[in-house]
Amino acid sequence: VRLAADGWAVESLDQTRLPGAQVPLRLTTWREAAEAIASMRVRGAPLIGATAAYGLALAARADPSDASLEEAARGLAATRPTAVNLAWALDRVLGVVLPESAPDRARSAYREAEAICAEDVAANRAIGEHGLALFSGLAAGADRPVQILTHCNAGRLATVGWGTATAPIYLAHARGLGVHVWVSETRPRNQGALTAWELARAGVPHTVVADSACGHLLLGGRVDCCLVGTDRTTAAGDVANKIGTLLKALAAREANVPFWVAAPSSSIDWSIRGGDAIPIEERDGSEVRRALGLPAEVPVANPAFDVTPARLVSGLITERGVAEASAAGLADLFPDHFRGDA
Amino acid sequence: VRLAADGWAVESLDQTRLPGAQVPLRLTTWREAAEAIASMRVRGAPLIGATAAYGLALAARADPSDASLEEAARGLAATRPTAVNLAWALDRVLGVVLPESAPDRARSAYREAEAICAEDVAANRAIGEHGLALFSGLAAGADRPVQILTHCNAGRLATVGWGTATAPIYLAHARGLGVHVWVSETRPRNQGALTAWELARAGVPHTVVADSACGHLLLGGRVDCCLVGTDRTTAAGDVANKIGTLLKALAAREANVPFWVAAPSSSIDWSIRGGDAIPIEERDGSEVRRALGLPAEVPVANPAFDVTPARLVSGLITERGVAEASAAGLADLFPDHFRGDA
Repeated sequence: VRLAADGWAVESLDQTRLPGAQVPLRLTTWREAAEAIASMRVRGAPLIGATAAYGLALAARADPSDASLEEAARGLAATRPTAVNLAWALDRVLGVVLPESAPDRARSAYREAEAICAEDVAANRAIGEHGLALFSGLAAGADRPVQILTHCNAGRLATVGWGTATAPIYLAHARGLGVHVWVSETRPRNQGALTAWELARAGVPHTVVADSACGHLLLGGRVDCCLVGTDRTTAAGDVANKIGTLLKALAAREANVPFWVAAPSSSIDWSIRGGDAIPIEERDGSEVRRALGLPAEVPVANPAFDVTPARLVSGLITERGVAEASAAGLADLFPDHFRGDA
Repeated sequence: VRLAADGWAVESLDQTRLPGAQVPLRLTTWREAAEAIASMRVRGAPLIGATAAYGLALAARADPSDASLEEAARGLAATRPTAVNLAWALDRVLGVVLPESAPDRARSAYREAEAICAEDVAANRAIGEHGLALFSGLAAGADRPVQILTHCNAGRLATVGWGTATAPIYLAHARGLGVHVWVSETRPRNQGALTAWELARAGVPHTVVADSACGHLLLGGRVDCCLVGTDRTTAAGDVANKIGTLLKALAAREANVPFWVAAPSSSIDWSIRGGDAIPIEERDGSEVRRALGLPAEVPVANPAFDVTPARLVSGLITERGVAEASAAGLADLFPDHFRGDA
């Protein structure tokens, strides 16, 4: 996501058209931004945060009144419930903009949206360095490239920079540390295809597998570590991420393989500790029916996320370093954010 | 699978066309039977065993020589490596037919194929009764229908009778014991659509979910038991079944939910104990690429089965009763089959 050449509209890529076609997306109103997020044209927790921030800037440009901004914030917040980046970005922009006088609000909102983007790029880079150190530990003495299993797309497409889970992968590849990525399909929206597309463009060796194949790979000794993103991590280290993450974490524990989560602080919800407090988005059953050729009357459940309890997480790779997935671990790295009352 | 009205050709349903269309399949040569099995027009461990048996009968009808039968047996055995029912059925028919004189061979082969079918129907029925007793135990005192999670299709379509994993479900429904079935999609071949189609026709309440949703369902307390089929169970109780079974078993253990396997003795390989000796079929990557819209150059791995170790299996529901998933448990129920030297 970025500003268009005209300096006010917002540009991105329609991810529902990838990998088949690269169709640009131009957002000119907060309602267009909200539609893009709800339809998953724009997706990935960090990217929807940044897009929502720009959505508020678009709203402020059209009408900087309190009522206008509050309506836009409500509309943008309602698009998707699970990723905390969305509420975080909206709160942050509102917090800067509302104290200002009306003529200054649009400029402030754009500036804050740009700051969120710049910080995301910096967080990606830092996560890349911290994750690379973990890969280097695995590579020492190994006779094959480091075998990394990921899920969904926590890549360039899901962020403003080089991705969260993919940042260490791109960095390893650039620095000559051999890696091979197992990319799981990620039904029902097939975000594995996005990850495969990204990795292919960067020349990173990878293999796509069905989600169901991951237990076989892990218990068969073909994976050295798991690395995924997160849509919301609690202050005690429970991780909500794309549906299917939990099954991989269970298999990783059984296989004695580290399970790492790339978690920029923008995705940490300091207000809750238990993962059961995270709202899990239930999406339309047509997403599942379509692939199966099932008629509309077939009952379908389509939860979009699951919660991996902290006990299954080997570490949270944040922009400040690798935290133990626990309240103590997060409090240690983020004393400025951690709330004793959460 | 059954004899056609003409008394010699073999009829089934082209499962690659379901659930959209019910296209009959007519097999008149062993090569057609082999093609139907390899392409998964006919699928499910018990059904491919029965179809292979009929394939040998078709071969014996065309040419009852040793060379002809041995060529057909080799060709049929080579179609799919994992399900042991295939080799079991072929060995059984050959064992009956080869000692006979040429003019009697076709009749004997048909008779043995019919016996295999009749035994499958009887095994399904017995598994239904033993499984129903397990469901009844779960239903006692519960305030909701018994919530059963299955995977792939171990149903009527996969057997000659009422299915292996589905037999207790149909029986419970017929006898008024409330059940609800969670049907997992079963990528990449989407056999969950077959199970949903079967259950809908029988009026059994069910809900389809992505494979990746099963951890969320299990750890969220929404499943009372798992019940799946098997393509090959070792003499020590390790279970090869459709890829993704292992992940469900791991999540079931974490959720303290029983994980049962409907295992007719035709699917037990008495010659091996460790699941790592089971050949795992690797199918063409196009099965995965198709749904994702990925070009042919994207690397894909497509293992079709995984092995769930006996320690994760709560019980093997056989036609003789429920066995502990262990060498001792199987030896106890099947002293006539169990081999101390395996």
